[in-house]
Amino acid sequence: MTSSEDLYPVSRLAAVQEATAKAGIDALLLTPGPDLRYVSGYDAKPLERLTCLVVPASGEPYMMVPRLELPAAQASPASRLGLEFVAWDETDDPYRIAADRLGRPATVGLADRMWAMSSLRFREVLPDAEQVLAGRVLRELRMRKSPAEVAALRAAGEAIDAVHRQVPGFLRAGRTEREVGRDIAEAILAAGHATVDFVIVASGPNGASPHHEVSDRVIQAGEPVVVDIGGQLHNGYCSDSTRNYCVGEPPADFAVYYEALRRAQEAACAAVRPGVPCESIDAAARDVLTEAGYGDYFIHRTGHGIGIETHEEPYIVAGNAEPMEPGFAFSVEPGVYLPGRHGARIEDIVVCGDDGPVRLNDTPRDLVIV
Amino acid sequence: MTSSEDLYPVSRLAAVQEATAKAGIDALLLTPGPDLRYVSGYDAKPLERLTCLVVPASGEPYMMVPRLELPAAQASPASRLGLEFVAWDETDDPYRIAADRLGRPATVGLADRMWAMSSLRFREVLPDAEQVLAGRVLRELRMRKSPAEVAALRAAGEAIDAVHRQVPGFLRAGRTEREVGRDIAEAILAAGHATVDFVIVASGPNGASPHHEVSDRVIQAGEPVVVDIGGQLHNGYCSDSTRNYCVGEPPADFAVYYEALRRAQEAACAAVRPGVPCESIDAAARDVLTEAGYGDYFIHRTGHGIGIETHEEPYIVAGNAEPMEPGFAFSVEPGVYLPGRHGARIEDIVVCGDDGPVRLNDTPRDLVIV
Repeated sequence: MTSSEDLYPVSRLAAVQEATAKAGIDALLLTPGPDLRYVSGYDAKPLERLTCLVVPASGEPYMMVPRLELPAAQASPASRLGLEFVAWDETDDPYRIAADRLGRPATVGLADRMWAMSSLRFREVLPDAEQVLAGRVLRELRMRKSPAEVAALRAAGEAIDAVHRQVPGFLRAGRTEREVGRDIAEAILAAGHATVDFVIVASGPNGASPHHEVSDRVIQAGEPVVVDIGGQLHNGYCSDSTRNYCVGEPPADFAVYYEALRRAQEAACAAVRPGVPCESIDAAARDVLTEAGYGDYFIHRTGHGIGIETHEEPYIVAGNAEPMEPGFAFSVEPGVYLPGRHGARIEDIVVCGDDGPVRLNDTPRDLVIV
Repeated sequence: MTSSEDLYPVSRLAAVQEATAKAGIDALLLTPGPDLRYVSGYDAKPLERLTCLVVPASGEPYMMVPRLELPAAQASPASRLGLEFVAWDETDDPYRIAADRLGRPATVGLADRMWAMSSLRFREVLPDAEQVLAGRVLRELRMRKSPAEVAALRAAGEAIDAVHRQVPGFLRAGRTEREVGRDIAEAILAAGHATVDFVIVASGPNGASPHHEVSDRVIQAGEPVVVDIGGQLHNGYCSDSTRNYCVGEPPADFAVYYEALRRAQEAACAAVRPGVPCESIDAAARDVLTEAGYGDYFIHRTGHGIGIETHEEPYIVAGNAEPMEPGFAFSVEPGVYLPGRHGARIEDIVVCGDDGPVRLNDTPRDLVIV
């Protein structure tokens, strides 16, 4: 069991502050979302009242909090950081208060998910500050998972694998995607996730839409079904895995490309090692599918980083020359989509280890006949 | 049963376009979130790939969508609008594509919840465009609920009332807040909500923290418990209601202020009618509590608007002189919080009717002894 202190160490704040200074940013402004949680451990709800961790390049960090959320902030892991909490009242202007404390910064780094209702207010009260993304600083830290983070992602992988093992019991001809999805959502929570982030049950032609979720479509015998599911553990770390099922024997054209897809996913996983550019993992999958004549049907990148967001850096996509490093964690999920017919996608979470790939999902990647 | 077409009428887009022109904004840029859903009916997932409905003040609206989400967008209610979907590929820069189509707008309106990762990219590709909030235009529309929207909020109210009626069966001494919260969350889904937005079970001293959620604290006999719960229906409309329970007889000091709180909430509801400033509803509650000696313990505003967001305009707060209009829908939720002791809050959703208040919650507001 990975502790919150391991996942969100108190020492991280100083590292962030140092990186902020090095990046030439005067202060990070972190509103609720993954950036705030990563730095402080505080999983604050994103709401219209301003909560904002201010991390100056030098000087003491502090957190703006609505007075009515002060007890919640104090009870959160952020309290371990010894920060000042600056509570503001309902009729105060918290942006003005923050601006007065900040002085005249030349550059501020905004949480990547800061809402426009906040970023535009910060622009008003700090008109001379150039706004950049805090991600410039935080991506370097967030991409490189610590051993505790890898352990948390492994636990998330085990939890979602446990759900995939139950899917054959949920899937049968005559049920709707939505009915199956509801069973899966319950199983995701029962497996220890705090939230269900997505449930894709894409039967027959819906399998050709990579981001289909569920519908009232009734699953038919002989139809392949793409099941792509994930959630977030209570500690913040996310799961994401795709497997393919078929109610009875699959159509002949499906079986042909599924075999190519299987090889493509293996090739991409095998290509993972320190030093190779992220895009080479994408190319490894794409080359196999192109060779097999399915290149035009693989219409998305091969993967995305994962951590306390389901989608984060690094992206496994053509054009991303960033070299892999030990601790990078990401999905490897090539797919083939035949519009109007069906589709398939095989997805594992993979960590770049010192010597090569470490897969965090472990259920059968072959088509599962139910 | 309110249909999606009633809630998200096709005619709305033209009304939004007209209001955009009138506000002197050249185009709204609506990324996933409530603004996009309100205008188009499309409940797109907020992710790192750009989805953006562009609503120019004149000319044809269109929607930027990642190619892999094109089938999902086409299957969504947005397809009724006869919009062009501009699909972009994984190695395209969708911001550049949008900028090229937009030309040189002087002012663009950003969805209130647009992430900084998008707003800063729009600033780069449209350096001469002043960014303002789309809310300037949309608030005027979103605040005034149509009869169909009021019906949807009424259904949401009935759903959450059904959960409150079950709470006495969940609450007993010896259980933790988290255990009770889990039962409530299941009941929220079973009552027809698509998501559980928040579950506050605040026992004893935790009741003094207005935004406490749940903890592992074991509920004791004789403790008041604040239960504030809500979710979002599948059609997008939200519920939110707070009731107060006590496991056995409450402490004497609690009973005194609860009676004052009860009167304060009644007074605030009774003050709702067209033409009165929003802040007067806040004052109506606050005056009763101040008179009773608890003004300093009522540390938040009286309420927030509600619709497809749990918190939206209008805010029922000192300083908001906006006059009430028929169709405004909002919470009325004064509270009293005694740090270290306990607290209470009574919350109903109220719609401003032509002649006065219409409450959408209907469970007993008196302390419920379990």
